Amino acid sequence: MVTENISTLDKTEIKTWFEGLQDRICSAIEQADGQGKFKQDLWQHHDEGGGRSRVLSNGNILEKAGVNFSAVGGKTPEKILEALKLEKANFFATGVSIVMHPKSPMVPIIHMNVRYFEMSNGVYWFGGGIDLTPHYVMGEDAHFFHSTLKQVCDKHDKSYYSKFKAWADDYFFIKHRDETRGIGGIFFDHLKADAIHSKEEIWAFVQEVGNAFAGIYSHLMVKNAGIPFGEAETKWQRLRRGRYVEFNLVYDKGTKFGLDTNGRTESILMSMPPLAAWEYDYQPETGSKEAQTLSLLKKGIDWV
Amino acid sequence: MVTENISTLDKTEIKTWFEGLQDRICSAIEQADGQGKFKQDLWQHHDEGGGRSRVLSNGNILEKAGVNFSAVGGKTPEKILEALKLEKANFFATGVSIVMHPKSPMVPIIHMNVRYFEMSNGVYWFGGGIDLTPHYVMGEDAHFFHSTLKQVCDKHDKSYYSKFKAWADDYFFIKHRDETRGIGGIFFDHLKADAIHSKEEIWAFVQEVGNAFAGIYSHLMVKNAGIPFGEAETKWQRLRRGRYVEFNLVYDKGTKFGLDTNGRTESILMSMPPLAAWEYDYQPETGSKEAQTLSLLKKGIDWV
Repeated sequence: MVTENISTLDKTEIKTWFEGLQDRICSAIEQADGQGKFKQDLWQHHDEGGGRSRVLSNGNILEKAGVNFSAVGGKTPEKILEALKLEKANFFATGVSIVMHPKSPMVPIIHMNVRYFEMSNGVYWFGGGIDLTPHYVMGEDAHFFHSTLKQVCDKHDKSYYSKFKAWADDYFFIKHRDETRGIGGIFFDHLKADAIHSKEEIWAFVQEVGNAFAGIYSHLMVKNAGIPFGEAETKWQRLRRGRYVEFNLVYDKGTKFGLDTNGRTESILMSMPPLAAWEYDYQPETGSKEAQTLSLLKKGIDWV
Repeated sequence: MVTENISTLDKTEIKTWFEGLQDRICSAIEQADGQGKFKQDLWQHHDEGGGRSRVLSNGNILEKAGVNFSAVGGKTPEKILEALKLEKANFFATGVSIVMHPKSPMVPIIHMNVRYFEMSNGVYWFGGGIDLTPHYVMGEDAHFFHSTLKQVCDKHDKSYYSKFKAWADDYFFIKHRDETRGIGGIFFDHLKADAIHSKEEIWAFVQEVGNAFAGIYSHLMVKNAGIPFGEAETKWQRLRRGRYVEFNLVYDKGTKFGLDTNGRTESILMSMPPLAAWEYDYQPETGSKEAQTLSLLKKGIDWV
């Protein structure tokens, strides 16, 4: 147990590690895809810092995948100060954000975010999460995904998984549809040193989450990309992507914050699917695999 | 000039007129389409009242068109009371909401809304608007659309068009893209009796706006449906539909209010396009007709 004020972990070290994480994830995903290559855009923030947006389009398995690194700073936006009741101070925020849309409806959409925020007055926290959005929920994959996340959590705190899994269920929820976005995962925010964990220990957990991503998704990509599918599955995939759009534009805090604070729109909306559909009052047939998936888009399911 | 308190116009009369407007618009649009038929869903509001949602899918000209009538009431939601600094009272709201997505990228998307809101304490207002979202801006159509709206406005108040046109430019604006949604139109809200207009006069204006819809859009449907187009135009149409989704889910007050207050999701999201696309950092070629359209998605253009 180490107390907060003797931490020597600084923002440059965290930022540099996130840059490296972006590199490693892009390499691993390119390898799993076997064809697509990430293209990079460097951008400057309107205040301080900037980012590296990397997008892979029309790969072998992935239709559109975005891996974004950023490290920005400046005056903390009023919206954050108000929302979180913080004193005025400058801020620094760095992180890696990922959304991947596969070609095949049999491969799930995945999202990950790991981030660090600090203010010039000493306030800081870590946040992040990984969640999986299968177009068709498959028990084996859901078990693999959640078990892996539980292992990641358990190494650091036996209470993390159940806490952060419930948080993900609540966060990745499309209220107006009464559906979860997918099968959830883990979500956490405002983690900082306390009586139990030092800043270094929390950072080690966040790193472990980041490091888990490539293995988890490469496995699911390669395992499912060869499963046959037809037009019916593609239609359903597009409808589910429509729900993904609804979640991101209506509820996602990162998206809203980015758009509200004049962030780089193309990097924020990298998460949008290549092609999404809406059909008025679409109801899958009773007993169909689509209906089965819908019935599993609920909070509180124990996937482990 | 008539003062507010001697108005005999009541909510039942307004509601009944809106129902008739929905009928007339659906008939006219079916006729212009020549093939598609509206299907109706009746629904009940969780508190009081309900609506008639009508959707036409896979017509000859229209891919997806929604014409929604509703008349609902109950306790005024806290969100409205707070946002508008209103005293607690019951509310009644009725109106017609329309969004039409044509098959051809050469036919514009159109939206109209006319509505009436009143509270048990005597507070009331009218609101509404029509705006046009051409996938390709054509000067002749833009002139026709805005001139027609100007005529509608001018019959009631010579100051309306310039005021409500500017309001539409500001309202139908996608801030994070620095683009207007389309070529605007008119938008107005919180209109009530004042020193110049009685409640009856404002209602007559709102009726005129409602009555103008079918003629305007039938003309544009029939005029443009035969213009040839290919894959490039369809691709652009899907990207523009993506922007339409962004506007509706991020900024549109009606959508946000509906989702926030537990409205009927399928009726609220009837406005979503059948198929929409997002492409990372898409830039039309310099000098292309797509670039030309983008250059015209700006506030303050005089289309008349």
